[in-house]
Amino acid sequence: MEPVSTDFLNAEMSAMNITDISSATIRQILALANRLEARLGDPFVHLEMGNPGLPASQIGIEAEHAALLQGIANQYPNISGIKPLKENASDFLKAFLDIDIPGRCIVPTVGSMQATFTLFLLLAQRIPGKDTILFLDPGFPAQHHQAKLLGIKQESVDIYDCRGEALEARLEPLLAKGNITAIVYSNPNNPAWFNLTDTEYKVLARLAEKHDVVIVEDHAYLGMDFRVRYGVPYTEPFVPTVAKYTSRCLLLVSASKIFSYAGQRIAVVCMPPELYDRCYDYLERFYEMPAFGDAYIFGVLYCASSGVAHSVQYGFAEMLRAAVDGRLDFVKEAQEYGRRAALAKKAFTDNGFHIVYDVDGDRPISDGFFFTVGYPGFTGSDLQRELMRYGVSTISLPSTGSRQEGLRVCVSMLNDPDTFSRLEERLAAFHKNHPA
Amino acid sequence: MEPVSTDFLNAEMSAMNITDISSATIRQILALANRLEARLGDPFVHLEMGNPGLPASQIGIEAEHAALLQGIANQYPNISGIKPLKENASDFLKAFLDIDIPGRCIVPTVGSMQATFTLFLLLAQRIPGKDTILFLDPGFPAQHHQAKLLGIKQESVDIYDCRGEALEARLEPLLAKGNITAIVYSNPNNPAWFNLTDTEYKVLARLAEKHDVVIVEDHAYLGMDFRVRYGVPYTEPFVPTVAKYTSRCLLLVSASKIFSYAGQRIAVVCMPPELYDRCYDYLERFYEMPAFGDAYIFGVLYCASSGVAHSVQYGFAEMLRAAVDGRLDFVKEAQEYGRRAALAKKAFTDNGFHIVYDVDGDRPISDGFFFTVGYPGFTGSDLQRELMRYGVSTISLPSTGSRQEGLRVCVSMLNDPDTFSRLEERLAAFHKNHPA
Repeated sequence: MEPVSTDFLNAEMSAMNITDISSATIRQILALANRLEARLGDPFVHLEMGNPGLPASQIGIEAEHAALLQGIANQYPNISGIKPLKENASDFLKAFLDIDIPGRCIVPTVGSMQATFTLFLLLAQRIPGKDTILFLDPGFPAQHHQAKLLGIKQESVDIYDCRGEALEARLEPLLAKGNITAIVYSNPNNPAWFNLTDTEYKVLARLAEKHDVVIVEDHAYLGMDFRVRYGVPYTEPFVPTVAKYTSRCLLLVSASKIFSYAGQRIAVVCMPPELYDRCYDYLERFYEMPAFGDAYIFGVLYCASSGVAHSVQYGFAEMLRAAVDGRLDFVKEAQEYGRRAALAKKAFTDNGFHIVYDVDGDRPISDGFFFTVGYPGFTGSDLQRELMRYGVSTISLPSTGSRQEGLRVCVSMLNDPDTFSRLEERLAAFHKNHPA
Repeated sequence: MEPVSTDFLNAEMSAMNITDISSATIRQILALANRLEARLGDPFVHLEMGNPGLPASQIGIEAEHAALLQGIANQYPNISGIKPLKENASDFLKAFLDIDIPGRCIVPTVGSMQATFTLFLLLAQRIPGKDTILFLDPGFPAQHHQAKLLGIKQESVDIYDCRGEALEARLEPLLAKGNITAIVYSNPNNPAWFNLTDTEYKVLARLAEKHDVVIVEDHAYLGMDFRVRYGVPYTEPFVPTVAKYTSRCLLLVSASKIFSYAGQRIAVVCMPPELYDRCYDYLERFYEMPAFGDAYIFGVLYCASSGVAHSVQYGFAEMLRAAVDGRLDFVKEAQEYGRRAALAKKAFTDNGFHIVYDVDGDRPISDGFFFTVGYPGFTGSDLQRELMRYGVSTISLPSTGSRQEGLRVCVSMLNDPDTFSRLEERLAAFHKNHPA
């Protein structure tokens, strides 16, 4: 294959006012890819986007339609969430994570995006002085933007070189300052697809108790550590969670990836009762509601959007029910991502690339939605830019809060053999032109 | 009828930690009404809630179902909104308001609630020093909470005693201070159902230009000034708007009331191109996007919820289309609210009450979704509390930012003759026990 020239790439980037590709948004990268595609003559291989690559669950669609026909579209949804959604989400947590959170402590949000946007606001208020969010990076860049937008301070730790017991030594001095109100991470990790280990959960729980910090655990890719067979209801092994070790936590469970339902924008925020009911002086003064959960639902979420689309709540409720009843094996359906990741990783490593975030403790990471790659002699930014010439679009690790040099690869758009062939051919051409 | 005793009311309020009923939320008033209902023996007459009292448009429901079957649930919606929604909303504005705003300047939000929450954030940023929102009150209490929640300063003017040309003298000194970034109002007004006059629109437009202020015009009840026959597409009279006189404005059009679609949570924010494309130094630095519209969509809305449920966008798009094509006469359907208001007003005024906000210029206000009432010798708070004893729940005017003594009455739940009879009987009993 013939890559587009560096001059052409530079001219197109310049025309789009992109000076540093590693700080471009995914939307800008998409637009740049569209411009380069015309010159390249062949479709781009899109590894930057995290759109679900599987069809939406039919169970959700049918439940939404039934609810609409029953006439719920004209009624404001209960801001706390409809009862079946709350109850089924509670059962879902029991069936797959083996934890007990009652329906009253579960509330729907317009995706986990709205969940973190609104939770950051409340978490930065609850105790005067605890005004900073700590991100365990790499992570989802939008969450950093959310904190910035809300004027909330943030700190970041790259977990790359402090896995296992080393995590405690790294976090302890940060938390001892007393200004951290919450620690945020996703598990499996976006973008690096590592999974925290039991050792690490225990460290986080211990520190959360010691320093009165709330752990925000994002389960966007719940059950997708395919090294283990999760997702059989009420059967071990259960999906790991810090909630096993502390009640100072919040779990976010989105329908976007586990049910391929991203278009309908729904997630649930799950609060252990100890946190939901915990009273804060500041919240009493500000919201006239002292309990964390009440202030969140009736104070913050009410103001953010007055709830979540009514029919979508019915759809999510029914998918959760089907999963709990064993009628919808969402983990098995998502294994397709693992299959694609194994193939894509091979295409990269066969051509001189290496996996950057490569192990959990002593085990290689799982295959799944994302992985990370580097190439000898390239910074993440240079590698991202150079691969654009070859018709392969990615995002760079620094944009995710990582301090490592490399790229995030998302396999969701690798949805047919032709795309895989194009990827292999282009990586081979890149490797040939850049002998390591 | 026999009202519940003052002692019983006090005990129930005390049990619910409500010290001042006029600062209770609608949710608390509902809960209090439920407790009193058991003692009263008969259902409450709910005049506090603004739930649409008409069935949802079937056109929207069918369009949502068709979109779901086409397989859009797994795809993130375009954050700018799907094209048919943007184009149809543009046509809707032309057909019913006779203004030209292209689809590219229109974006969906999760109800107008999300629109104001996110717009306030951006409006308070655009020019350093212009950090205060001015509310033309009375208004929607949640919007005041939104500003408070976001840490944005606010001021309020009760428009009661500065209608017409007097508005200019009242606003000019406030705006001359230079700290006001936006003026917010709804038209027809929630809660008082007055409508601004041409004189007032011209004053607002003139002041917006002079002081570089953005007018946020909430069209929640678009076309529902039933003194005039609005809602015939491309035919005069057109729904009045400040956009006729200035481009320094934003229009919010929600599906909740005009299509009785509140449950599905969708609205559009419509920006005149002059505002969408206006560049600000601060936005360039903060978002790396200088244009107001880009910063709003890709900077703020993206972080708030990553867009609006995909199927709901198709539903709204199709209802707007049907309205433009003359297949859905949304104004005629909403006239039912006007009919109920006329009956309810008579029940109040026959029993010693008066309408508080009573005229627009020299014309009596329209009948519609809301109206306001007072009673001789009663503050708003006392009247609200006393009527609870008689099984009639309302909200008080002070909670809406009004300085007048009285109540807001919403007719949406007055949906059968029995409820009207109960209302008449209870107001008569109240009047008998409180001779004016």
